[in-house]
Amino acid sequence: MSKTVRDLGEFGLIEALRDALPAQTVRGRSLLVGIGDDCAIWRPTPDEALVITTDALIEGIHFRLDWTDWLSLGHKVLAVNLSDLASMGASPRFVTLTLGLRGTELVEDLRDLYRGLGALAAQHGVMIAGGDIVSSPHGMTIDVTAIGETREGYALTRTGAERGDVIAVSGTLGASAAGLRLLRDGGAARNAATADLLIDAHLRPQPRVALGAALLREGASAAMDVSDGLFGDLPKLLAASGVAGIVYASRVPVAAAVQGLFPVDWFDLATRGGEDYELLFTCPAELFDDIAAAANDVGSTVSAIGEVVALGAYAPLRLRLPDGSMSAVLTGAFDHFA
Amino acid sequence: MSKTVRDLGEFGLIEALRDALPAQTVRGRSLLVGIGDDCAIWRPTPDEALVITTDALIEGIHFRLDWTDWLSLGHKVLAVNLSDLASMGASPRFVTLTLGLRGTELVEDLRDLYRGLGALAAQHGVMIAGGDIVSSPHGMTIDVTAIGETREGYALTRTGAERGDVIAVSGTLGASAAGLRLLRDGGAARNAATADLLIDAHLRPQPRVALGAALLREGASAAMDVSDGLFGDLPKLLAASGVAGIVYASRVPVAAAVQGLFPVDWFDLATRGGEDYELLFTCPAELFDDIAAAANDVGSTVSAIGEVVALGAYAPLRLRLPDGSMSAVLTGAFDHFA
Repeated sequence: MSKTVRDLGEFGLIEALRDALPAQTVRGRSLLVGIGDDCAIWRPTPDEALVITTDALIEGIHFRLDWTDWLSLGHKVLAVNLSDLASMGASPRFVTLTLGLRGTELVEDLRDLYRGLGALAAQHGVMIAGGDIVSSPHGMTIDVTAIGETREGYALTRTGAERGDVIAVSGTLGASAAGLRLLRDGGAARNAATADLLIDAHLRPQPRVALGAALLREGASAAMDVSDGLFGDLPKLLAASGVAGIVYASRVPVAAAVQGLFPVDWFDLATRGGEDYELLFTCPAELFDDIAAAANDVGSTVSAIGEVVALGAYAPLRLRLPDGSMSAVLTGAFDHFA
Repeated sequence: MSKTVRDLGEFGLIEALRDALPAQTVRGRSLLVGIGDDCAIWRPTPDEALVITTDALIEGIHFRLDWTDWLSLGHKVLAVNLSDLASMGASPRFVTLTLGLRGTELVEDLRDLYRGLGALAAQHGVMIAGGDIVSSPHGMTIDVTAIGETREGYALTRTGAERGDVIAVSGTLGASAAGLRLLRDGGAARNAATADLLIDAHLRPQPRVALGAALLREGASAAMDVSDGLFGDLPKLLAASGVAGIVYASRVPVAAAVQGLFPVDWFDLATRGGEDYELLFTCPAELFDDIAAAANDVGSTVSAIGEVVALGAYAPLRLRLPDGSMSAVLTGAFDHFA
């Protein structure tokens, strides 16, 4: 089982990888033609609109093979795409996958990649419709395009936030960034009892698919997923909606483990760390309690962290500190090329 | 206009690239949400099935920036995907695009990439629904996922070839491989009057979209596009259909320029060169003349080059030489990792 990609060749590899996927993710009533022809053919659901997203992971930029196991890597590349679909309230249906490989990878490692991806796909009823495998001599690339569906005219976008709405977020923030810090720095902190939890949050984020559907159903006004950090992403949502926002510093939900292991900069990790893959949303204030209950029903927690206000002379995003003072937030998302 | 990607940053770049696309490719009645939100939303045509393909180009493997101009590169990455849709007889609808960039690229060059892609998209009524831009420090990667539609239960696959069918191919073969050879070797041959034609065939292949639709309508039994060379791809179609084939060497259509500039190995270029992006198909013999006429109506030529026979004791693909003798064809497609 120590064959490499080069030993097996492109066409043998395609079969070996397909065989590593759960049967229900490669064939089904809606997938009329799957892996193996020039294209896949898939039957859409009548009266639904298609929701499309694409997200790539590049070795050395988005992942390091000495920090992740292959199962987690397969999980994550699907999770980040399902998270985008979740943020629109869409139901995920199928994905295509392009793998760029050095050729020296072990086939069994790549089968683990597919097993990790396949397990999450099976959990969400997602089909693997096909893909492309190409040579990428300088490092692995994994690019997934994910297609979901939603009832036509019925999706959460970034543009619907209105003055007076509550700003809310699911789960806790900062765990993924803290996990990445632990992977990077190693050492004592990494061995703390709580460290595994944070590292797991970084390597195996859980896409909030059921929560996204609940937010849509219960009347949230706008949503997006938090991939570039709260202070990177919230300004994008506010700008798309033409409004401003105030976040209450004391209400930002942060896991105790993050505060415990990073007593100095836990708030920065929580607001600017990124890769949380929680859902950030707005809703009319009177709907928040129902939304929180609906979130609980699907195993999520949500926290009201601020309010939408009209655009004015002040900064588009302000932070209210525990003493009641206000501070403009220096916004700006993570820039891949900065 | 000599700004680099790093100068402009990720978010400025997204706007600069979107602005380089023709207006009709970024918004339209069917594209309910386009570039700029977490996902795009697109309205499928009632009673049509979705046809999905994905194909990536990697710098140093599929293209060299000193051999191609940026407009041609944008054209080609869309063309190879539309060619896959054409081979199923599908109508192309929209694409997503993932760009992996070093960061040192000139923004104006990338705008040319988008202009090249946008011009071909506009010509085929294809929308650019969205994408992802990531850092790829060791070289550019361009990955396109293309979605088309076809009436449900109505598509060309590789599995329908039957004993007695004609084997046919569109256009001529070998021009792209000859063009690549000219780019690689440079020198005298490259300056021949006909060289530009061959280089153009390599850099700017034309996807046979209208021909694919005509083949489907007129009753072709199986089809695929020729990307790995006739002797790489035809065996895949025959194997998928459970049949064997005979190709008549004298009927393989080869451009005069290929024979003229490569008098020694023109036949190898035509049958094993690859990247032709012509359509290879089979059809009942009695339909061939109607199919040829329908092909002419959409500006294509097709040549009958052989026949489908039953699987037997002999090689699955044989070549009949001009003297009437038969020779087994050593099959095998280009393997990215061999």
